[in-house]
Amino acid sequence: MVQAAVFGFGTVGSGVVEILDKNAGQVARRVPGGLNVKYILDIREFPDSPYGEKVVHDIDQILNDPEIKVVCETMGGKEPAYTFTKKALEKGISVCTSNKELVEYKGAELLGIAREHNCSYLFEAAVGGGIPLIMPMLNCLEQEKITSITGILNGTTNYILTRMEQENAEFGDVLRQAQELGYAERNPQADVEAHDTGRKIAILASLLTGKSVRFDDLHVEGITKITPLDLAVAGQHGFRVKLLCVCKDMGDGQAVYAAPHLVGSDSPLYAVNDVFNAVLFHGNMVDDLMLYGRGAGKLPTGSAVVADMVTAAVHAGENVPIRWSGEVEKPAPFEECVNEFYLRVDKADADRIKSALADGICEDWTSDAAGEDAVFVTGAMTEGEFAAKTAGEPLKQVIRIYRK
Amino acid sequence: MVQAAVFGFGTVGSGVVEILDKNAGQVARRVPGGLNVKYILDIREFPDSPYGEKVVHDIDQILNDPEIKVVCETMGGKEPAYTFTKKALEKGISVCTSNKELVEYKGAELLGIAREHNCSYLFEAAVGGGIPLIMPMLNCLEQEKITSITGILNGTTNYILTRMEQENAEFGDVLRQAQELGYAERNPQADVEAHDTGRKIAILASLLTGKSVRFDDLHVEGITKITPLDLAVAGQHGFRVKLLCVCKDMGDGQAVYAAPHLVGSDSPLYAVNDVFNAVLFHGNMVDDLMLYGRGAGKLPTGSAVVADMVTAAVHAGENVPIRWSGEVEKPAPFEECVNEFYLRVDKADADRIKSALADGICEDWTSDAAGEDAVFVTGAMTEGEFAAKTAGEPLKQVIRIYRK
Repeated sequence: MVQAAVFGFGTVGSGVVEILDKNAGQVARRVPGGLNVKYILDIREFPDSPYGEKVVHDIDQILNDPEIKVVCETMGGKEPAYTFTKKALEKGISVCTSNKELVEYKGAELLGIAREHNCSYLFEAAVGGGIPLIMPMLNCLEQEKITSITGILNGTTNYILTRMEQENAEFGDVLRQAQELGYAERNPQADVEAHDTGRKIAILASLLTGKSVRFDDLHVEGITKITPLDLAVAGQHGFRVKLLCVCKDMGDGQAVYAAPHLVGSDSPLYAVNDVFNAVLFHGNMVDDLMLYGRGAGKLPTGSAVVADMVTAAVHAGENVPIRWSGEVEKPAPFEECVNEFYLRVDKADADRIKSALADGICEDWTSDAAGEDAVFVTGAMTEGEFAAKTAGEPLKQVIRIYRK
Repeated sequence: MVQAAVFGFGTVGSGVVEILDKNAGQVARRVPGGLNVKYILDIREFPDSPYGEKVVHDIDQILNDPEIKVVCETMGGKEPAYTFTKKALEKGISVCTSNKELVEYKGAELLGIAREHNCSYLFEAAVGGGIPLIMPMLNCLEQEKITSITGILNGTTNYILTRMEQENAEFGDVLRQAQELGYAERNPQADVEAHDTGRKIAILASLLTGKSVRFDDLHVEGITKITPLDLAVAGQHGFRVKLLCVCKDMGDGQAVYAAPHLVGSDSPLYAVNDVFNAVLFHGNMVDDLMLYGRGAGKLPTGSAVVADMVTAAVHAGENVPIRWSGEVEKPAPFEECVNEFYLRVDKADADRIKSALADGICEDWTSDAAGEDAVFVTGAMTEGEFAAKTAGEPLKQVIRIYRK
């Protein structure tokens, strides 16, 4: 039996404890004797929980117990998660986490500390919740030259966009519904402004390059300006709007960004709706590969943390290697990315803007669904070219079009 | 550098050699110095191939070279692949294969030999081609109680069904097209009669149970009787027809079978078209998880073989454990499976058959698209109950309906 501790008894932490209890038989197939949660670290007491007697408030009580081999860090946020993770790793205790903010912020450093102390820092649950992404990427695709990673990695915004489309509803109204249902936070900014998605693609881009791609260097755009009118016009042409995060090979670097995109029905990403997440890898040999599942939630996310805890327990006393150095890798300049654009403008401005884009106009999508506005889509051009040609113009909407 | 050999320089084998050459830099990230193909075993000569000088005809020349640590077996079929694999494993050489027929037939025994000789028998490419399925199932889902596995695991039949639907074409005509394009074999029986799919679900069911689920014990039905009329009627109700293979937990065992099913647009399997494959796992904690990609082809399948070769090289001298014993696990009796059914009958027989099914009728789907026939779908009942109620009746078509 391997002894473990849980740091943070919130949604995911309590999911981890529940899974280790209910699926103890499954876990014991890999970890002889199973994985036992000996301590739960939290500032709160949980007198009504069946696990309440495991709660302690002093991290040293855990770190000084030589039986503890694995910790699950499900506190979230940078501090004290960073300090606590570092302390555990320095004691040779492996740490498994769902904390994407900390992984993006200090992943390279914490991996280095784990390496030095013959233990592991694992974070499958930090990207894509319950979907196994990181382990397959590192262990099943190492022989591939991955030319792009395209993800729907935020369940809250995917739920909002799906509801807006299906109910012809405004962003603000659907957001309120989502908050009532618990699918959106009271402060939804990290989700709807694409910070959460941006952190996740920064982590995947770092794992792809083996260097540190920083969230602060990325172009990110949220979904707050998407309207049901845009969804209706897109729908008439066989597209849905999805908040995509993208890492694509530009030859001399990776373009890494997050923004809403029109996704056509010929893409497997089109069918990823509601709170589901998916990541589409494109490799030079394997071609398209998509992994799809629940990107959030107590039990799915807890399941991915437990998978890592099992791996850490099986490899207790050694380091499970993940290549990610502290050397900063700047993304390729966003202006150089080539995209096609969906544009909605006032009818009065349409002719002038079309002529500014000159040969770039591809199709006119103006229809009754567009109401008072003109809608058109451009051909492929760089972000810089698009920005220069539309500088100063009153664009009511710009959405990129996803092309494989 | 790790030295390897390739047994069988056909489609997949030549893909493996090409990947190891073109993506040598990627492979060397995990295998210091890379993986070098020292020998290619084939009965033919390949004077025009850049790898022609590596070809040998005597397996002993390879097995007696102490440098060889990894073999890729891409010969296909039972013999001589079985004998050659056994000989290599007995020498402590790991074998990685795409040969589903041999894996289904002798997987448990060959895994045992690998275990005894501190080497590995790996077969990621045998199920789902380029899609990493087996490694994620064994290493990322070990903490789950997997309650069902539902797969589209044959690209040929998925291509045929997609074309039949899109072109309103007959099975025979589309099969001929597929043969001309190289998507179907000249003898298509293994694909269209669902033997290929059946072998693949037998392998996944064996890995799930840890025992040997035999293809010969499974109920399998192919797609030869599906008509464009069925696809049109299903389409009107939001369904497509897919050849699914199924392994589902019945409480006291696993039901394991392969048959065409109507799949609704609310399932992620609905969007799996053309030659693509996918597997949908349902776990008690992680809920739905789908892995999607190319299930066949020289480079995608080769990529999965190379991933295994990398794993075997990293773990040279030790066994990568896969739990699969020789103890035979009989599937749960097919008669006890609960399904809903799509039925097409002559209009003259409709009333009598409906009354035989009594309360089981759920919806009438008869429409102009059904032509001279009556179409209806039943509610849920066991296979045994359905068979008893329709015994002796002239049913023109029966297709099961996939429900999550």
